[in-house]
Amino acid sequence: MKTALDFLKPRTVAVIGASRDPMKRGYRAIKTLIDGGYAGHVLPINPKEREILGFACYPDLASAPGEIDLALVCTPARSVPDVIGSCGARGVRAALVLAGGFSEAGSEGADLEARSMAAAEKGGVRVIGPNTAGLFDAYTGCNLVGWPGVYPGKIGVLCQSGNVAIGFLAQSQKNGHAGFTTFVGVGNEGDIRFHEYLRFYGEDPNTGAVIVYVEGFKDGLAFLAALREVAVRKPVVVYKAGRTGKGEGAARSHSGSLAGNYAVAQAALRQAGAIVVERSDEVFAVADMASRTAGRPTRRVAILSEGGGPISQAVDALAERDLELPRLSADTEARLKKITPNATQLDNPVDAGGGTDPHPRYFPLCAEAILADPSVDALLIVGYFGGYQVRYGSALAEAENTAARELVDLARQSGKPVIVQCHYAEFATGAIDILRAADIVVVRSIEIAAACLAGANRFHRVASGPLPAASLPPLSRRRETAAKLIAGARASGRRSLLEPEALELLASEGVAVPPFAVLHAPSDARSLAPMLEQGPVALKIVSKDILHKSDVGGVRLSVRGAPSIEAQSEALLQHIRMTCPDADIVGVLVAPMAKAAVEVIIGVTNDPQFGRVLMFGLGGIFVEVMKDVVFRTLPIDRQEAATMVDEIHGRALLDGTRGRPPVDREKLVSLLLDVSRLALAYPEISEIDLNPVILNADGCTIVDARMLLD
Amino acid sequence: MKTALDFLKPRTVAVIGASRDPMKRGYRAIKTLIDGGYAGHVLPINPKEREILGFACYPDLASAPGEIDLALVCTPARSVPDVIGSCGARGVRAALVLAGGFSEAGSEGADLEARSMAAAEKGGVRVIGPNTAGLFDAYTGCNLVGWPGVYPGKIGVLCQSGNVAIGFLAQSQKNGHAGFTTFVGVGNEGDIRFHEYLRFYGEDPNTGAVIVYVEGFKDGLAFLAALREVAVRKPVVVYKAGRTGKGEGAARSHSGSLAGNYAVAQAALRQAGAIVVERSDEVFAVADMASRTAGRPTRRVAILSEGGGPISQAVDALAERDLELPRLSADTEARLKKITPNATQLDNPVDAGGGTDPHPRYFPLCAEAILADPSVDALLIVGYFGGYQVRYGSALAEAENTAARELVDLARQSGKPVIVQCHYAEFATGAIDILRAADIVVVRSIEIAAACLAGANRFHRVASGPLPAASLPPLSRRRETAAKLIAGARASGRRSLLEPEALELLASEGVAVPPFAVLHAPSDARSLAPMLEQGPVALKIVSKDILHKSDVGGVRLSVRGAPSIEAQSEALLQHIRMTCPDADIVGVLVAPMAKAAVEVIIGVTNDPQFGRVLMFGLGGIFVEVMKDVVFRTLPIDRQEAATMVDEIHGRALLDGTRGRPPVDREKLVSLLLDVSRLALAYPEISEIDLNPVILNADGCTIVDARMLLD
Repeated sequence: MKTALDFLKPRTVAVIGASRDPMKRGYRAIKTLIDGGYAGHVLPINPKEREILGFACYPDLASAPGEIDLALVCTPARSVPDVIGSCGARGVRAALVLAGGFSEAGSEGADLEARSMAAAEKGGVRVIGPNTAGLFDAYTGCNLVGWPGVYPGKIGVLCQSGNVAIGFLAQSQKNGHAGFTTFVGVGNEGDIRFHEYLRFYGEDPNTGAVIVYVEGFKDGLAFLAALREVAVRKPVVVYKAGRTGKGEGAARSHSGSLAGNYAVAQAALRQAGAIVVERSDEVFAVADMASRTAGRPTRRVAILSEGGGPISQAVDALAERDLELPRLSADTEARLKKITPNATQLDNPVDAGGGTDPHPRYFPLCAEAILADPSVDALLIVGYFGGYQVRYGSALAEAENTAARELVDLARQSGKPVIVQCHYAEFATGAIDILRAADIVVVRSIEIAAACLAGANRFHRVASGPLPAASLPPLSRRRETAAKLIAGARASGRRSLLEPEALELLASEGVAVPPFAVLHAPSDARSLAPMLEQGPVALKIVSKDILHKSDVGGVRLSVRGAPSIEAQSEALLQHIRMTCPDADIVGVLVAPMAKAAVEVIIGVTNDPQFGRVLMFGLGGIFVEVMKDVVFRTLPIDRQEAATMVDEIHGRALLDGTRGRPPVDREKLVSLLLDVSRLALAYPEISEIDLNPVILNADGCTIVDARMLLD
Repeated sequence: MKTALDFLKPRTVAVIGASRDPMKRGYRAIKTLIDGGYAGHVLPINPKEREILGFACYPDLASAPGEIDLALVCTPARSVPDVIGSCGARGVRAALVLAGGFSEAGSEGADLEARSMAAAEKGGVRVIGPNTAGLFDAYTGCNLVGWPGVYPGKIGVLCQSGNVAIGFLAQSQKNGHAGFTTFVGVGNEGDIRFHEYLRFYGEDPNTGAVIVYVEGFKDGLAFLAALREVAVRKPVVVYKAGRTGKGEGAARSHSGSLAGNYAVAQAALRQAGAIVVERSDEVFAVADMASRTAGRPTRRVAILSEGGGPISQAVDALAERDLELPRLSADTEARLKKITPNATQLDNPVDAGGGTDPHPRYFPLCAEAILADPSVDALLIVGYFGGYQVRYGSALAEAENTAARELVDLARQSGKPVIVQCHYAEFATGAIDILRAADIVVVRSIEIAAACLAGANRFHRVASGPLPAASLPPLSRRRETAAKLIAGARASGRRSLLEPEALELLASEGVAVPPFAVLHAPSDARSLAPMLEQGPVALKIVSKDILHKSDVGGVRLSVRGAPSIEAQSEALLQHIRMTCPDADIVGVLVAPMAKAAVEVIIGVTNDPQFGRVLMFGLGGIFVEVMKDVVFRTLPIDRQEAATMVDEIHGRALLDGTRGRPPVDREKLVSLLLDVSRLALAYPEISEIDLNPVILNADGCTIVDARMLLD
């Protein structure tokens, strides 16, 4: 059965702009196809040539024979709308456009891109690029990027930068055993976008792990949807550029796409199941590892070495990535003791050193005992195993290679992942080659080894855990009150709800809000409900023109009794009329004082890439100072909301400190879900800020509510 | 002139336990000396042999001729006290003891170590080790570790693990141009400790940078003192194992030394001028880089590439390490535009890509323009420069090698550091070789390149900045009041001062404390000073048996007027007598309520490795929850105290939030210095906790004070 993008493994490629000049891309492309052993048909197209590199050359697409899966467009940008038009006329399924000079290069280029895409749509042609490095498929030998030395393996690469992909290729070449399936440079995503490519990798039987390098998504929500589908079946390792403000700038100008707030992107990608990696030098190894562990757990790690030092470093690196070092059983320890009588430490980490002579044979012997221990998920070997033959000379090569072969067998028999950190990983020793050929990852860096284990275990959790929430039981219907409040605000030309309106809207949606009243005149204080009248209450100015009430002295706290409320309201109104003479004042909001407790913030925003985003964190002044907040794209489910609550650094505050009882987490989680539902039901409310929400053992009190309209 | 440890470059080495058996260390040691071209004299010692590997063998040290700088002791642990005794008798200057089985291996071994050291002291012999990998000096060819392939360079290695040092050696071998001066494995630090070795490197003319790998110091204060001296002259790159709780455990059992709290160690090492590196895979490259930049600044970095992707990643990596990307001048941009007409970005980062053909020659041309820009300190090249000849084939090799040579000249002429991140760094291309041979560091990882720049700039700052504070103007004298209070507490068998005592002690040392009184009976309230009587005041139970007053309900807040104070004190005392029937109660402390403001903590502890440590951070319940605290070893000066205040995450709180004025930083800094002086003057006060100290625009109020005695 054909999958949607099977032209990424084309049976026939037409090269438009084919050339006999070895310096031109139209020549090199054909040369690389020959060198790569491409099994499909190559149709050079050039009106001036009859034959190129042994292939018959055709003057145009119309005269070329047979079905054409893919046209490789090597001609300049200005020609592309016409070329794509001719592809459509000829029934070519897809066009790969190499040229730059489109939307990434200003408004003129954007216009050219729009015209190209219109031609594609009209002719039913799918477009890869423009402004792309190209694509290769290592299994069919269809190499349209012109990179030498691509060989088949398990890693698919979906990349917004050809130069970054070259970095992966170089690592594959040095490794000798970690190869590729299909590479696609997405370019400007003029037509086909990240999510469609990702689904292609999800279907591709050769692909064991996908690397995604992205600067910005054109359709972030569609990518998240595809990620939710694919990430439970295959590890998807995502590096998102633009972590810092400056990085965002660089990414924007590089690919003409939107790089949003990184914290949101990171949360959204994780939430949908990605393995998010934040160092460029870890991406390839993590994908390699995850493609080999294939969903097995790697959380509980045993460390094995002959000699310390690297053990201490490995312990730190594992702990920093939330991996565990289980204690080995007494039985395992006893077995190890027999193998390595001089060992200095056996309960994990296992340091088989202590003697004066090198013992590569210790490794399979100890590994056998360790892998049999049920408390161990995976084995990390550190130090110089794999490099004994460099360190001590070739006399040890045979013993070490034998040990490597035995280790391979043990890893297979036990079904548990083994990874080797070796100081000599860059030396192509026989032992390292044996290990890598048999799915045992060998890296030089201890930290990268730890990242590999963390990434593999992350995939295990995604693959074996509950599916990420794709939907949230919606509000049964849009309610009249909310619609009326929003319409009313708009009718009076406002772009936000007044605080009492926001509170009323929340209440109308079933969210518990504290009792409140609005005094349109101070004398209204005389008819307050007893609960408010008896106080203590807070008085807050209500005006569409005053968003930051405290900053202008628009709040009075701890007022009690109608006479005081009336007098203070009068004073408050006078003060505001003085300080903000142009403010349109509605009145004074009266609300009960909340007891001092834990203050949190619950917020909703619209992310340009990922849509509705929920924020939760410590509230009050700590929002700005400590920035202890976490994000999720909506929808979320109850489990995900509970995870959010657990992720803030200040979570211990919620458990009660200094004799305070813990807050009611269930009610907090329910409030997060209520706000999420409301945000999804009313997309016209562009931002919601509930800050602070005061939490205690009895529940949540929304002390301040702000809603902006789009 | 002889420096203290010049036997680390011995002119004569006696090998005790020399052997003809190629499997024995006593053979391999001599073999490696020969292979390394050791220029000094080798004296094998073995009563059973006449000749080993061409050297005359002597039955004992006494019969060996000439002065002996160093004895390499290859014999088992139990023989070591006698061997060292014979070294002393013979006038051997130092002994290097390889064997393990000393203090790292339990009490019996500790005893053996003590006897060995006693013998050394008696005979005037300095000891390296025991339980050490050995030492090498790459310049004299004195290789006593038995590692092949050590060659000379600029990096000194001072290492608590031979296995970690092997990792550096492997990197040096693959690099081909970054070599070593002297390596020393400190082993158990039985005699010579880290600080003496560090001073040796400080004096060594060949050493351009020092790597220190440490699990725990036996004399941390002495190391800090040596570090303060050396780090201003040479970059000292320190990796301290034991960052996590588990790592501490592994380090402890590995070397039998004390690995303390990592946060304190990190602060102490930085404060004394170290370049602290926290990834094992960055240590070698950072040292290599810093040895070459030799104190030049590298903060303002220009990025150059042909093609994006790696640029975005580099921008992130630099920003995360507080390096800057200055905007290039219009003049520089214009020069660049002429060189690379198709360039997509020129204002830094500089992306010279945009054309379709590869242009290695762009690099020297662009580099010349960039390095001439006065806003640029250093140049970072990213992508595949150095690997064009791999990526595009050998046809480009000559052009690329020429470009590399030109780049080398430009770097030299400009005097500005250049570093290259190259995807093909592991491929020994001609261009990479040219760069590395000429002091241009080439690494594969973008993050490691950024770490190199950050490390080099750190050394620039240490070398050019003010010397770290080695002393603090002390208290003029120990005062009677303090001495009396401490003596009084001890006399009554207490290990802490009562809160009023601590306040009195602070006051007696000139530290402003709020007015307070102790009610020995509730009726004492009637004779309170008016300021306290008028309140509001806090009432706090005073008892040596109650350290956490809030936890047992030992505090009453916001009490006003003598009658209330009396009544509440009575109630408080009754409550405590009920809940803590065994507590020895002194009375009730009355102190004014401090206005709600910013709460901080100021603390002093004794670190087992680094002595007196000052802590500063957000106070109140946030100490436990947010752990937003920073450390310094004492003494500090005013500048260092001000830096502490700026380092907490919540520093924005001190600048005033929500209309609050900023706190008085000068007074806060003075208080930090006062507490530091006090801590140094009274070492018998083992811990001080001022928490909270309330800060506002007027100054600091110490709300609670606790002092523990040792």
